[in-house]
Amino acid sequence: MKNSRLTHLDKDGKTKMVDVGDKKITSREAVASGTVKVSPEVIKLIVENKIGKGNVLEIAKIAGIMAAKKTKELIPLCHQINLTHIGLELEIDKLNKKINIQSFVKTKDRTGVEMEALTAVAVAGLTIYDMCKAVDKSMEIGEISLLVKKGGKSGTYVRK
Amino acid sequence: MKNSRLTHLDKDGKTKMVDVGDKKITSREAVASGTVKVSPEVIKLIVENKIGKGNVLEIAKIAGIMAAKKTKELIPLCHQINLTHIGLELEIDKLNKKINIQSFVKTKDRTGVEMEALTAVAVAGLTIYDMCKAVDKSMEIGEISLLVKKGGKSGTYVRK
Amino acid sequence: MKNSRLTHLDKDGKTKMVDVGDKKITSREAVASGTVKVSPEVIKLIVENKIGKGNVLEIAKIAGIMAAKKTKELIPLCHQINLTHIGLELEIDKLNKKINIQSFVKTKDRTGVEMEALTAVAVAGLTIYDMCKAVDKSMEIGEISLLVKKGGKSGTYVRK
Amino acid sequence: MKNSRLTHLDKDGKTKMVDVGDKKITSREAVASGTVKVSPEVIKLIVENKIGKGNVLEIAKIAGIMAAKKTKELIPLCHQINLTHIGLELEIDKLNKKINIQSFVKTKDRTGVEMEALTAVAVAGLTIYDMCKAVDKSMEIGEISLLVKKGGKSGTYVRK
Amino acid sequence: MKNSRLTHLDKDGKTKMVDVGDKKITSREAVASGTVKVSPEVIKLIVENKIGKGNVLEIAKIAGIMAAKKTKELIPLCHQINLTHIGLELEIDKLNKKINIQSFVKTKDRTGVEMEALTAVAVAGLTIYDMCKAVDKSMEIGEISLLVKKGGKSGTYVRK
Amino acid sequence: MKNSRLTHLDKDGKTKMVDVGDKKITSREAVASGTVKVSPEVIKLIVENKIGKGNVLEIAKIAGIMAAKKTKELIPLCHQINLTHIGLELEIDKLNKKINIQSFVKTKDRTGVEMEALTAVAVAGLTIYDMCKAVDKSMEIGEISLLVKKGGKSGTYVRK
Repeated sequence: MKNSRLTHLDKDGKTKMVDVGDKKITSREAVASGTVKVSPEVIKLIVENKIGKGNVLEIAKIAGIMAAKKTKELIPLCHQINLTHIGLELEIDKLNKKINIQSFVKTKDRTGVEMEALTAVAVAGLTIYDMCKAVDKSMEIGEISLLVKKGGKSGTYVRK
Repeated sequence: MKNSRLTHLDKDGKTKMVDVGDKKITSREAVASGTVKVSPEVIKLIVENKIGKGNVLEIAKIAGIMAAKKTKELIPLCHQINLTHIGLELEIDKLNKKINIQSFVKTKDRTGVEMEALTAVAVAGLTIYDMCKAVDKSMEIGEISLLVKKGGKSGTYVRK
Repeated sequence: MKNSRLTHLDKDGKTKMVDVGDKKITSREAVASGTVKVSPEVIKLIVENKIGKGNVLEIAKIAGIMAAKKTKELIPLCHQINLTHIGLELEIDKLNKKINIQSFVKTKDRTGVEMEALTAVAVAGLTIYDMCKAVDKSMEIGEISLLVKKGGKSGTYVRK
Repeated sequence: MKNSRLTHLDKDGKTKMVDVGDKKITSREAVASGTVKVSPEVIKLIVENKIGKGNVLEIAKIAGIMAAKKTKELIPLCHQINLTHIGLELEIDKLNKKINIQSFVKTKDRTGVEMEALTAVAVAGLTIYDMCKAVDKSMEIGEISLLVKKGGKSGTYVRK
Repeated sequence: MKNSRLTHLDKDGKTKMVDVGDKKITSREAVASGTVKVSPEVIKLIVENKIGKGNVLEIAKIAGIMAAKKTKELIPLCHQINLTHIGLELEIDKLNKKINIQSFVKTKDRTGVEMEALTAVAVAGLTIYDMCKAVDKSMEIGEISLLVKKGGKSGTYVRK
Repeated sequence: MKNSRLTHLDKDGKTKMVDVGDKKITSREAVASGTVKVSPEVIKLIVENKIGKGNVLEIAKIAGIMAAKKTKELIPLCHQINLTHIGLELEIDKLNKKINIQSFVKTKDRTGVEMEALTAVAVAGLTIYDMCKAVDKSMEIGEISLLVKKGGKSGTYVRK
């Protein structure tokens, strides 16, 4: 097991952005998900008030889409990639007192879009927190993980 | 229980940035935390290689600090606040196969800095994922929550 | 009538950001408005489809709020001001085939927020164009003007 | 007439960034225009003072070019496109008391650059307002519209 | 001589943004300067062509002013400061084949604006390079230093 | 010698972003360098304190990499280019009391990456200044120049 497997570190452990110039331009996709654990009070407020609900989830969705486009500014060693598609789905899971977030990101470029998908989920979650924090400060954003990654030399990854 | 408790929505459910003009300028602080669940292989790589380890955590820390300053650009209805202090602590928890992240944020302004603290944690976690994803794509970023909030009219909040 | 009235130009016509260091910190407000002229088809699509309508106007509103926070990055000689409130109202004017946009911006700072209010309106208008351009490319964004300005040494301005 | 014509909304009316991955990379151009109505006093100040004039229009031009590059950050569902050319022309129309703004934008990408051209015009107009607002607050930015769009499957559009 | 003098590193050498919350809000200023060494050909082109000259220096000036406002995004541990004034002077020094750049920055805040002044100079220099690089790639940007710093507990600094 | 050689100015001296649409997509590289002159005290602090040293240079490196990605936002007429690689090397030159900075930038695009390489060096230098300015305000950032440029119609440039 070699240090060089941490691909952002070069031979002497010096930080660099990986050189992807020799990678092929191919279709690449990533799906990520996460959750926000919310109190029953927050669930009730969002569900019963139709306008309110629409807004909380809608604003979180917009925030996630816009954040995916900012990934390269947030993650220091991330490459600049122009995305061809960003989608977010949010749903309220009353039973488990959670808001589920899922993102779908695509590009045709030399490197994958996992970070863009994960960033979209994280910022959508943070936005839900911001929208509802006056009611409940104990919300928890979590379970942020990569579900699927397609395209590129390393092939398809599906989370078990 | 009224909709108006969702303070970002006005009487008719229309989105707006809360008016904080009448709030007092006071010292405000927030502490947030989160974790990245990592595989034993990732732990080993980070722990054994001193330079590598320093870099992964160091870059995540820088990313978190810089992200705190970008909170207002990421969270649609967040106010613009100039922070007087941002600190991040990262530590490897071998036993539980986690990297623990904690952020400390301060300001002297009219509204709190919870979102800045949470954003710092989330982006530090995303950066760890980015640094190590060549080794392990199953990492999970989570448990992002507010530990402490001080200052302002609503007083001190401590997570139970 | 002196050139120095163009306050962004100094004595020799050299560009600079006006020095506002000696101005007082006071409450300052600005109200701006604008319109997007749309075809009957666009009106119909937005009005009849409740979800669609909510989204078009909602996304434009979010875009406007976020743009107000970016004013200092867009307008070269604009000061950096932290806003205490940003609100946007959008309404469909069927009779005149327009979408009316109005913004309300506040701060407690040394200089006014006219540019922030105008920028919010302009970007909300651009976003409406983006959302509907697949249906109609002939939309026109216009009538962007300052309605009211309050606070500061120059006092209250109300558009006639 | 179907809702799906509002291409940013998917089947269930949920917001998303349109998937352009299957579109061809072609040369695409857009020309947009707009105006700033100004008082005779502003016209006089700009016209008579050569340095001043140069600066007001020059700074507006730079602001417009830089804003075109920021379009993806301003318009929530806009794709990230790297432009190959951005040009702006500004001229004073004494007779009609207007400053005319025209933008020319090009790319070789999968989707059009209408929004980039319109954003350049809008921000150039806002900058003129900012430069001259100490003299006249009644200026009006308007008539922002797409003149020509070339390239892509939908072909050429010319405003009537 | 203690490590703690490197104020961005805490006791254990861990990176953090210095806590300035207890510092007083006072008037603070900084003056910085730098140069771009250019070939005689570049000097000639800029000097003889009046329009061209105006533009090269004008665009560099605008770029410097806008960069000062972005300092907090560029320098990882820099505080967010809202500047009350930014000015830049550029002059051609034919004899020494240089373009001299000087910046003047002010704020009323808890920490100094040295970095903002230095960033303005550096980015103005980079912009001159960009404007003229088709003619001469051997230009050198340098001598970027702090001339004066006023305000705050540490008092006035004047470069010898 | 023609004005048109200043390629950012069109025939009438009007500012524009050069049209690179007809240039070929090729591999392009740039190497730039610069220095920060530091006092013996700063050298000593950085060299003797291993953690401290690691951090100062590490943070400067991260700052340089992130700045390279922001070049298009800083330099008004710079094209938007997605880089495939960014690397920075920093070393302490005790003898000459300097920190040497070198950047390596690559892309596959229609125009060169000189500005990205130079911007990375300049911002790394500014960051070193920021990290050490509590100890020494007389540091000087300089000698920022292009060492090598490869790719594109104009071929290879090597600084003499």
